[in-house]
Amino acid sequence: MANVLRKEQFILPEGVIYLDGNSLGPMPKNVPARLSGVMNDEWAQMLIGGWNKAGWMAQPTNVGTSIGRLIGAAAGSVVMGDTLSVKVYQALAAGVKMRPERRVILSDKGNFPSDLYMAEGLVGLLGQGYELRTVAPEDVATSITDEIAVVMLTEVDYRTGRMHDMQALTKLAHDAGAVMVWDLAHSAGAIPVDLAASNCEFAVGCTYKYLNGGPGAPAFIYVRPDLADTAEPALSGWLGHANPFDFDLHYTPGKGIERMRVGTPPVLQMAALEEAMKVWDGVDMADVRRASLDLQEQFIKEVEQAVPQLELASPRDPQARGSQVSFRFEHGYAAMQAVIDRGVIGDFRAPDIMRFGFTPLYLDAADVTAAVAVIEDVMTNALWDDPKYKVRGRVT
Amino acid sequence: MANVLRKEQFILPEGVIYLDGNSLGPMPKNVPARLSGVMNDEWAQMLIGGWNKAGWMAQPTNVGTSIGRLIGAAAGSVVMGDTLSVKVYQALAAGVKMRPERRVILSDKGNFPSDLYMAEGLVGLLGQGYELRTVAPEDVATSITDEIAVVMLTEVDYRTGRMHDMQALTKLAHDAGAVMVWDLAHSAGAIPVDLAASNCEFAVGCTYKYLNGGPGAPAFIYVRPDLADTAEPALSGWLGHANPFDFDLHYTPGKGIERMRVGTPPVLQMAALEEAMKVWDGVDMADVRRASLDLQEQFIKEVEQAVPQLELASPRDPQARGSQVSFRFEHGYAAMQAVIDRGVIGDFRAPDIMRFGFTPLYLDAADVTAAVAVIEDVMTNALWDDPKYKVRGRVT
Repeated sequence: MANVLRKEQFILPEGVIYLDGNSLGPMPKNVPARLSGVMNDEWAQMLIGGWNKAGWMAQPTNVGTSIGRLIGAAAGSVVMGDTLSVKVYQALAAGVKMRPERRVILSDKGNFPSDLYMAEGLVGLLGQGYELRTVAPEDVATSITDEIAVVMLTEVDYRTGRMHDMQALTKLAHDAGAVMVWDLAHSAGAIPVDLAASNCEFAVGCTYKYLNGGPGAPAFIYVRPDLADTAEPALSGWLGHANPFDFDLHYTPGKGIERMRVGTPPVLQMAALEEAMKVWDGVDMADVRRASLDLQEQFIKEVEQAVPQLELASPRDPQARGSQVSFRFEHGYAAMQAVIDRGVIGDFRAPDIMRFGFTPLYLDAADVTAAVAVIEDVMTNALWDDPKYKVRGRVT
Repeated sequence: MANVLRKEQFILPEGVIYLDGNSLGPMPKNVPARLSGVMNDEWAQMLIGGWNKAGWMAQPTNVGTSIGRLIGAAAGSVVMGDTLSVKVYQALAAGVKMRPERRVILSDKGNFPSDLYMAEGLVGLLGQGYELRTVAPEDVATSITDEIAVVMLTEVDYRTGRMHDMQALTKLAHDAGAVMVWDLAHSAGAIPVDLAASNCEFAVGCTYKYLNGGPGAPAFIYVRPDLADTAEPALSGWLGHANPFDFDLHYTPGKGIERMRVGTPPVLQMAALEEAMKVWDGVDMADVRRASLDLQEQFIKEVEQAVPQLELASPRDPQARGSQVSFRFEHGYAAMQAVIDRGVIGDFRAPDIMRFGFTPLYLDAADVTAAVAVIEDVMTNALWDDPKYKVRGRVT
């Protein structure tokens, strides 16, 4: 097993143990120099010429390919752009068009709300009997019937870390004639994913969590290569056109995954992400997984020994869990604020989830032990029972 | 008339006269320091806390308000995000929902193709007889009938600079019961716009042209304040939700313009744009307009004297023209490459348009004279007739 720890490649503030890389990854050390170059040597000096000379136009597919390696997607089958919500919409819209005789999008109540909202918006626009149906996560398998046009699931539950079985559910969807869309928000860079083996039609994800692309980093979309030349992009913007600079009056979708591009890509964000992806050079996701589970098992064991009143909200079986561990506590919001105040950054998810992310590129066993000591102090001494920790602010 | 020239606030490469700020504005000098701060002091040090502590979450509406001042939109009626193509889609989708009994989106063949493509994508998804109808720009007025749900026009033609009459066409649209959507891509920061006076329902625009926000800077959308609490966002992402951090399973649109937000905003791009907007402090768009027309009139006069074979493609009447001047020339592509090669950067638009943008914040009369001298040299001596200038690359 190769060691994946590379703390020295990140900026981590003094006195902080960061267990929230599943919300926003920390900054890889080389990003500022890269962005400085993009601004001073490319934008400022090349001006409009940067689109060709600096390679800005090709970045969305180049970065897509570097992410593809971590999620089992062939080179040229992933492209970057927009936000995850927009990419969800594109995947869903293309999916329902592939099953014109069906009317139901199936998802589960554990899915990230924005995915459900985007589906609601889409079915509202489509009218004609289109419907979003959401069931409990454990009922998904039995709810995949021949009414279902598209099954849309997030592999790792954002609150509990519970994992769906990607291979099995994709097979069930296909057996029922449905299209499968996977959201990899908490999977890409967190756990091994093999999109090609799963045979799903679409996958989407974000890059500001485990891929450390920075706040608001662009999203990605994968289309199974055999479908990429026929999938309808719905958001048919000019950079998805076969010949964007011909300025035709009619849309002709581009070749393969390129058609999933929409508007002008965010070059500064794309460059930050491209630089951040270099952290993954030579990293094998199987090694990341083993290291992540070691940290998680240590954390669960130490927390349960030290603080019995915290109830594990994540699956106890490590194979059923992504790269985070969540505990339930009635006063979880205040407790998390008290923990953060002492330098251990996790986050809170309503109604009562204290969530801790494990990112073995920059966390080790000593960090886990130190974090547990803080949690123990907060819980044993009820340090959370202070009015200042109970004022609700926006938590992301 | 106040002088709006502030060259010292921009980085402009040595030996370059930049007449392409209508494609990508040059870099305001203070942007790199701001981005460096966002990376090193905010992302790296505050980590997830940056969303609140550094104000990232509020940026899309704050920056929207600073742009609103330049386009006659009240504070809080403009929000940033996504790309212009995506914002066009949101405006169109909301517009057609406001006129459920109508089926036609009207636009013109001079519109920027991506706007037409997004409309094609939308009507394709809607089915049910929805239609995009495009007419010649001069036929728009007579084509606004009671079949039209939404009129979508770009105020300034991207090739010729020809301007539509925003007030008159909006009134015609309203008289016919249609919703009006204006694309201000070549208007915002270029010419005075008074959205409130026009009474249009929606406006959208980009910020990497005259607003100098950088490559891939986020787009904006305006919704008329009396409609902002009822317009349906279509792309109903979590950051447009009334309470995004409640993680409800169902979408409830946020208050006013906030509902037009979709996914996580691109913080680095947003900060670059916010910094770039400081260039406009104390600038009156009426002064910008006067200065722009002075430069344009000088340019047309000097070019026509020096190079009679160039045919003016822009309206001769300055009041009918935006902030650019275009000339037709059969070998316009090669000629523009030859001109660029000599330090005067304009651009080419198929099939035969040589386009020059005028941006009086960083261009003066001496720049115009120097640019004309280069154009004269290239044209008089047929310097464009060189094979190296005829190889087509991507031009943006």
